Amino acid sequence: MQATSIRLRAPGVSYQTRKVVLAAALAGVELSLSLQEDPEILSSLVPHGKSLVLEVQSASGSPFLIARSNVALRFLAENSPAAGLYGETLYEAGLVDQWLDFSFNSLETPAAVMHLPPDAQVPLAVKETARREVEGAVRVLDEALEKSTFLAGHKVTLADVGVFCALYELVGVENAGSMSIALENFPGVLRWVLTLLHQPCFQHVSPGEADKMKRLQAKLPSVGSTRRKLAEGPLAENGNRRPSKADVAGARATQASAAKGGPAGGGRSSTKPPLLPKDGPDSSLFDRRRTVIKELLVERGEAAVGETVTIKGWVRTIRAGNKGALLFIELNDGSTALSMQAVLEADKTQGFAEATPASCGGVGASFSITGTLVRSPAEGQAVELHATVVEVLGKVYGGEDGGVGGKLYPLSKKAHSMEYLRSNAHLRARTRVTGSVMRVRHAMAYATHKFFNDRGFKYVHTPLITGADCEGAGEMFTVTTLLPEKGAPRLPIRPDGSIDYSQDFFGRRTSLTVSGQLNVETYACGLSDVYTFGPTFRAENSHTTRHLAEFWMIEPEIAFADLEMDMALAEDYLKYCVWYALRHNEEDLVLLEKVPGGEAGLRERLRNVLENPFVRITYTEAVATLERDLAAEKVAFQVKPEWGCDLGSEHERYLTEQVYKRPVIVTNYPKDIKAFYMRLDEDGKTVSAMDILVPKIGEIIGGSQREERLDVLKARCREMGLEEAALWWYLDLRRYGSHKHAGFGLGFERLILFITGLENIRDVIPFPRFPAHAEF
Amino acid sequence: MQATSIRLRAPGVSYQTRKVVLAAALAGVELSLSLQEDPEILSSLVPHGKSLVLEVQSASGSPFLIARSNVALRFLAENSPAAGLYGETLYEAGLVDQWLDFSFNSLETPAAVMHLPPDAQVPLAVKETARREVEGAVRVLDEALEKSTFLAGHKVTLADVGVFCALYELVGVENAGSMSIALENFPGVLRWVLTLLHQPCFQHVSPGEADKMKRLQAKLPSVGSTRRKLAEGPLAENGNRRPSKADVAGARATQASAAKGGPAGGGRSSTKPPLLPKDGPDSSLFDRRRTVIKELLVERGEAAVGETVTIKGWVRTIRAGNKGALLFIELNDGSTALSMQAVLEADKTQGFAEATPASCGGVGASFSITGTLVRSPAEGQAVELHATVVEVLGKVYGGEDGGVGGKLYPLSKKAHSMEYLRSNAHLRARTRVTGSVMRVRHAMAYATHKFFNDRGFKYVHTPLITGADCEGAGEMFTVTTLLPEKGAPRLPIRPDGSIDYSQDFFGRRTSLTVSGQLNVETYACGLSDVYTFGPTFRAENSHTTRHLAEFWMIEPEIAFADLEMDMALAEDYLKYCVWYALRHNEEDLVLLEKVPGGEAGLRERLRNVLENPFVRITYTEAVATLERDLAAEKVAFQVKPEWGCDLGSEHERYLTEQVYKRPVIVTNYPKDIKAFYMRLDEDGKTVSAMDILVPKIGEIIGGSQREERLDVLKARCREMGLEEAALWWYLDLRRYGSHKHAGFGLGFERLILFITGLENIRDVIPFPRFPAHAEF
Repeated sequence: MQATSIRLRAPGVSYQTRKVVLAAALAGVELSLSLQEDPEILSSLVPHGKSLVLEVQSASGSPFLIARSNVALRFLAENSPAAGLYGETLYEAGLVDQWLDFSFNSLETPAAVMHLPPDAQVPLAVKETARREVEGAVRVLDEALEKSTFLAGHKVTLADVGVFCALYELVGVENAGSMSIALENFPGVLRWVLTLLHQPCFQHVSPGEADKMKRLQAKLPSVGSTRRKLAEGPLAENGNRRPSKADVAGARATQASAAKGGPAGGGRSSTKPPLLPKDGPDSSLFDRRRTVIKELLVERGEAAVGETVTIKGWVRTIRAGNKGALLFIELNDGSTALSMQAVLEADKTQGFAEATPASCGGVGASFSITGTLVRSPAEGQAVELHATVVEVLGKVYGGEDGGVGGKLYPLSKKAHSMEYLRSNAHLRARTRVTGSVMRVRHAMAYATHKFFNDRGFKYVHTPLITGADCEGAGEMFTVTTLLPEKGAPRLPIRPDGSIDYSQDFFGRRTSLTVSGQLNVETYACGLSDVYTFGPTFRAENSHTTRHLAEFWMIEPEIAFADLEMDMALAEDYLKYCVWYALRHNEEDLVLLEKVPGGEAGLRERLRNVLENPFVRITYTEAVATLERDLAAEKVAFQVKPEWGCDLGSEHERYLTEQVYKRPVIVTNYPKDIKAFYMRLDEDGKTVSAMDILVPKIGEIIGGSQREERLDVLKARCREMGLEEAALWWYLDLRRYGSHKHAGFGLGFERLILFITGLENIRDVIPFPRFPAHAEF
Repeated sequence: MQATSIRLRAPGVSYQTRKVVLAAALAGVELSLSLQEDPEILSSLVPHGKSLVLEVQSASGSPFLIARSNVALRFLAENSPAAGLYGETLYEAGLVDQWLDFSFNSLETPAAVMHLPPDAQVPLAVKETARREVEGAVRVLDEALEKSTFLAGHKVTLADVGVFCALYELVGVENAGSMSIALENFPGVLRWVLTLLHQPCFQHVSPGEADKMKRLQAKLPSVGSTRRKLAEGPLAENGNRRPSKADVAGARATQASAAKGGPAGGGRSSTKPPLLPKDGPDSSLFDRRRTVIKELLVERGEAAVGETVTIKGWVRTIRAGNKGALLFIELNDGSTALSMQAVLEADKTQGFAEATPASCGGVGASFSITGTLVRSPAEGQAVELHATVVEVLGKVYGGEDGGVGGKLYPLSKKAHSMEYLRSNAHLRARTRVTGSVMRVRHAMAYATHKFFNDRGFKYVHTPLITGADCEGAGEMFTVTTLLPEKGAPRLPIRPDGSIDYSQDFFGRRTSLTVSGQLNVETYACGLSDVYTFGPTFRAENSHTTRHLAEFWMIEPEIAFADLEMDMALAEDYLKYCVWYALRHNEEDLVLLEKVPGGEAGLRERLRNVLENPFVRITYTEAVATLERDLAAEKVAFQVKPEWGCDLGSEHERYLTEQVYKRPVIVTNYPKDIKAFYMRLDEDGKTVSAMDILVPKIGEIIGGSQREERLDVLKARCREMGLEEAALWWYLDLRRYGSHKHAGFGLGFERLILFITGLENIRDVIPFPRFPAHAEF
């Protein structure tokens, strides 16, 4: 049956009529409205018809009447199946039905009780119970919306229409006083409401609705705040809340009493005591008082059009237009590679005169800009900001006389060499390349902690200052308090002329660590699965693009593990990092592909790593392959590959870039070129070591199964000239309850080179330390 | 209407009949079975009755017939409302209905197609499409079950019964070959199946079902594996998978092709390209080949009863019983404070003889134990392990002759002083106290990264080696390569007799940093919101329980922020850490309350911090309060409080522990006792600084708004005798686009003391460094 005409009859505008009007608009059905009918007459026509009656005329037969708004909604959806108001699958249809029931039972019914007028003489306790019920329902809604754009499926359905309109009953009733629901506490719901408000149908249902919509919107905090749980109290008019001491104290009292009652339910089973909320403390005081640009340009895009926001940041570009009556400013706040384009007009933007390049000093000045977001005409950018108020927070004093101007500002010009930026390491975070690299660096650090934490590994802070000098991984820096800043040195000297380090701070000679591995092994033998992530040092006079004197290392150690498990973990970890960057740093990777000298195929290379299993070959196979290809003149090397010598960078890169074209794990190296703690293989010649080689970098990870047999370990120490006495505590691990274990190390800066495609390791650490360089 | 008798008529046992039998058992309804009926006759009785007919006799009237298993289920539930098979709320009822529809449409119908016998002559492509549909549905199911025990609400409902039985169709059909669904890939589904299989009704429906149940269970991996996504291939018989190279390669090929097709659907909207899965890479190679004890004792408890698992760890206690025929071993693997009790029997446990204390050396030996989990008779412990196989991985060689035995094992006795444990820092991770402290330490580090990452702060690694010596926070260690390990020193000396540091590694005198703040400020002025988390150093000859020479600091810096925002962030952060520990480390906190010298009211104190707002007072008010209470003889101090002097620990603790009994933020200290970079207040006497004082610790956080005005900052430098030239780069930040900013520092070890209740800072860092101590 197709309806030929549909009329909505009701005593006035209510949330129920709003539902039906919205659903009809979405269904593409024309609805004639009759909104001044007598409720008594309506309910005489059809039971429950007091609030509204839908009068449906079909081609054949007499009209039929529908009461109850949710039934009307279902009719409209079924009448126009193409509109997809019941979702796209039966699964979604089930969800829609469930949300409509939920709306009626858990929102509309108790909300009606809660908002009964005083003359209904309902006891306050009954209303309060209803209010709590509603609050619980909104919490359920909030949880459901935490990760979903709409209630069912990927589009607006009846579920959204019904629940959205029911919410009106909660936020739209004037003078609700203590009975109101603070929607500010439900960020998922708020985000969803904002999304719906920007759907065309929701904006244009009927002119009479617009005011109500605006009132609701005015109650919402600025976008910057919707992502947080604001539990502190009412919002200031402009949405940028500045909490006073009084309202903070008041709101806190509320929270405390709410907390005592336990978090309102609606959630699934929890194994913890009810007093502890599941995602963090209920209260949150921190408010940026600005909207982060990433939120506007990356996360929300056009959904933010129409909103008024304040952004703060530094000028990337500034230019005047229309004979000085316009200013175009690109403002960046470091949250993303993208900058917000702001348009300032002389006669519309308060503070315009101060904002001109001559007045603020141009590029590098810090600004606060408030304005309205509009669709951007420029490509590749969803919105731009039409400024109503601009404030210059800090000018650029780079004039030749020390006054305002850009001449002496080190970053005023557009393109700088990476080397030049290094000499301005204190300002380079403001540049596009360094900004993106450091965001990727942050992401990789977070991904590392998340990867290991999710898998039950415990983070162990191994010491930086060490009395051991048997790690054998390289030259070490001395740490001492024996040398004066000024004046002649007065070192304590032993009778044999050597320095008496027993008088130094630690009563012995101490150095900066070259690896946390030996230390972290002791924790693996008690906590099972552990990792380090900290700085390590090499006092080597190396000037390559691959070495630093101070760098960060990640060293997991797995108890009860062999080399196979070690390789599995390493491959999982590396792929996780690649996945994380592709998933969370897309804008940065896009930028790094485009900048001068950037790697054009960066994301492509990373995806290949993610999607292919790593090749596994033994060292012996690797050397044979290199020798074969050298003999066949497929390749030329500076150093001839030879069994027993370490692979050079040229060999490693040939294997991974030319032979296998993907990451390669090389295992079982000759014992003489590897450390004493690596497990001796059955052949007595090689050890259970593995290196992971990746395109562009060569070796990125080195690991091994550790020697767990006390006698073999002692023999290896002797072989390599290490003193057993200095290693007493390390040997104890094999003496008392030894077991297999394995681990690996990854140089964090090499990972960043690998992910960003940059060439020089000095550009991927905030303040690089290398010979003769410790400025800043 | 109440049924008086119900009879199930069907042509045999099928997943449909199983549904009805199960639902009847759960509803507490007696069902008479008639399972050899002619399907033709059944379908003549009622349409769609071929598979089953439920014949219901009520007290009044003739019997009525129900066909279709899901309709029968609904009838049974409504007939016995007290059984709650439709859930407890209307919301849950909606979910149940939706899952039943889902089961019919998305599982049963395509599964029927997929399993059509060859003689049905259905094209393979059609079957394959059906198979994919089923796989997608199982994925939807898996996502729903990721965080829920049951499909709707907190108990078994019709939803579980229906979907569970439908799954039989997928896993229970013999010789399904390429048409089978690898349930091993869906950990949520597997966990749920196991949970259901341990519900009494599911175990005892009818004797004929038991075999089928066992077959299903045998297909499941061990519990240790159910938590992970095992995408690599089939499982070995004992559930502990040891992947061969061949099957890894095979499975990888499958993954790669699956990845190319995009992750299978069922998910919600995604803003990223479809190729990238949302929670991490699809593949995962790492497998512990053991079950983590925390999973069994904390996360799953009785739900794990009946499962066969392998655990590995170190012996905490071991004792013999029944004249040596029994061994009771408490095994700990560091994943939790709790240990697993394992019971070994001489005639049932393979390897028993090797496991006796005399043979393994007792406490500290490392073991692998495989067995069955049974309900534990002991209180406070859900399960214990009845061992079938035991393997001693590493004995304790602590006999006086160097042989097997416990005498020389440093931790063989039960109680050790904290000081003794410090001298065995390489083994103390195995003890109860240190294990718990280090798990809390890990949790606090992770909570820190999560807190800041979730709020858009970027982690910045500031340098450890610094050429600056104007930070003024304390004595510094020199970092040098000028001092030889052996032999006479040969220092480069200038004509005036001083050391020529230009010949040192970095071309200048360098030290270990005392704070990353000045460096991180440069990144705040480009990335906006940043934080450091790294080691810092003090070369002070301090022997207190509150100071270390090497410790870790967290220093956030917020651009465009004032002191108010700084305090808000600090309070949020501290409360987040407290919440995180209460939420994630309950077993550790309970243990730390019980150990000798532990703080009995630890969790109570932490909850108070979480639930109360911090007090905010000015330094001037604080001093006035101290002076007033001193004059009133309410308190006695060793040092008299006086305006202009720093507050001592005794003053701080009096304020927070006695006066306010909660955390206190003291603001606006006299400028002369604070650092040069803190913002001068309007009165010209104080600065916008704040310290947070907490019970037990005193100062835990110190922060300030920074001086953003170039001229004021320069004047303050001069006042405090600092050289402008050395600070050129720091002053540049005020020269080029300056703005308000603020930050704070928190000593990580003080946080751990605060959370664990321990007294000595040397016990909360893995390897403490203090004067004369750099062993290990």
